[in-house]
Amino acid sequence: MKGTREAVALPRATQLLNHGPVTIITSAHDGRSNVMAASWAMPLDFNPPKVVVVVDSRTLTRQLIDASGVFGLQLPSRGFAAQTLAVGSNAGAGLDKFAAFDLETFPAQNIDVPMLAGCITWMECKVIPDDSQRHDLIIGEVVAAYADSRVYSNNRWHFGDDPDLRTCHYVAGGTFFATGDAFEVAPVASGAMG
Amino acid sequence: MKGTREAVALPRATQLLNHGPVTIITSAHDGRSNVMAASWAMPLDFNPPKVVVVVDSRTLTRQLIDASGVFGLQLPSRGFAAQTLAVGSNAGAGLDKFAAFDLETFPAQNIDVPMLAGCITWMECKVIPDDSQRHDLIIGEVVAAYADSRVYSNNRWHFGDDPDLRTCHYVAGGTFFATGDAFEVAPVASGAMG
Repeated sequence: MKGTREAVALPRATQLLNHGPVTIITSAHDGRSNVMAASWAMPLDFNPPKVVVVVDSRTLTRQLIDASGVFGLQLPSRGFAAQTLAVGSNAGAGLDKFAAFDLETFPAQNIDVPMLAGCITWMECKVIPDDSQRHDLIIGEVVAAYADSRVYSNNRWHFGDDPDLRTCHYVAGGTFFATGDAFEVAPVASGAMG
Repeated sequence: MKGTREAVALPRATQLLNHGPVTIITSAHDGRSNVMAASWAMPLDFNPPKVVVVVDSRTLTRQLIDASGVFGLQLPSRGFAAQTLAVGSNAGAGLDKFAAFDLETFPAQNIDVPMLAGCITWMECKVIPDDSQRHDLIIGEVVAAYADSRVYSNNRWHFGDDPDLRTCHYVAGGTFFATGDAFEVAPVASGAMG
């Protein structure tokens, strides 16, 4: 069963990224497109939602993002981890990674970038040009967000029993952690101050 | 049983943060100190190791980091999640959070900042001053790193059976995900290109 892609309200969009999962970045410009994995991605602000990603200046992805001013940021599930590793381990300069790894795409809503059908949440981002790009930091405003209704709806994650439908967190060398069980805590009370 | 704090080689230090866990930032200057939770923290470079954290310009933590040029970045385990939420939910301006939440500290090795004994990995960071601070992005070079030998040694994570000794990932409103099980994949082979 495939899920449906349902809109996520923009002021809540950073919640898709807050838990630090591995991401995949898609990019396109002037007939060329590319896809790479990125562990180094995080929210930067809530409303308007902004994210910051690290994209090496020597990569094709960076070249395409710099030229187009947009990128797609999506979360793979565990079932897509082998593809995630593949797009993270191969440079796009001499290889059409979409074709090479048989990656199905669909058109983004608000930007001209292919989005990955095999992922479970998606953010469409417009670059906010900034000097921090010299450190390879790309700041983006999220202009559309949506999620697979099997795992996220009504502003909350609800991973079920299928281990392949959880997000994951990259360690190194082909090793990931699955996103584990949710738990809730109340803050400890302030005691010692009396 | 408490673990011992064992040094992590600096070129491998970013592996402590790569999987996107929630962090706690400690800071101090001129007799004042503070502690806050930060979900928005990620590696920026491997060697020398650099990290980037988001610290709101209106916070006491930011004031102390700007004045001292250093900060402590550490990972709480699940067993420390209530304390993490507490230091993330209360401003430090009118409250000594170390005393209020009964947080044991020890002196850092290379910077003048208290580190939290209840955490399981630690990075000591020196700020690399940068214009991106106007976006609340603080770039730091990691100058010392160490980890609790019960969960990390020989450059790898090895979470065991104790659920309280796993790192965790913050969602919102007191909800976290535990770091789940590790798994390894091989990249999918490039097929369609033939």
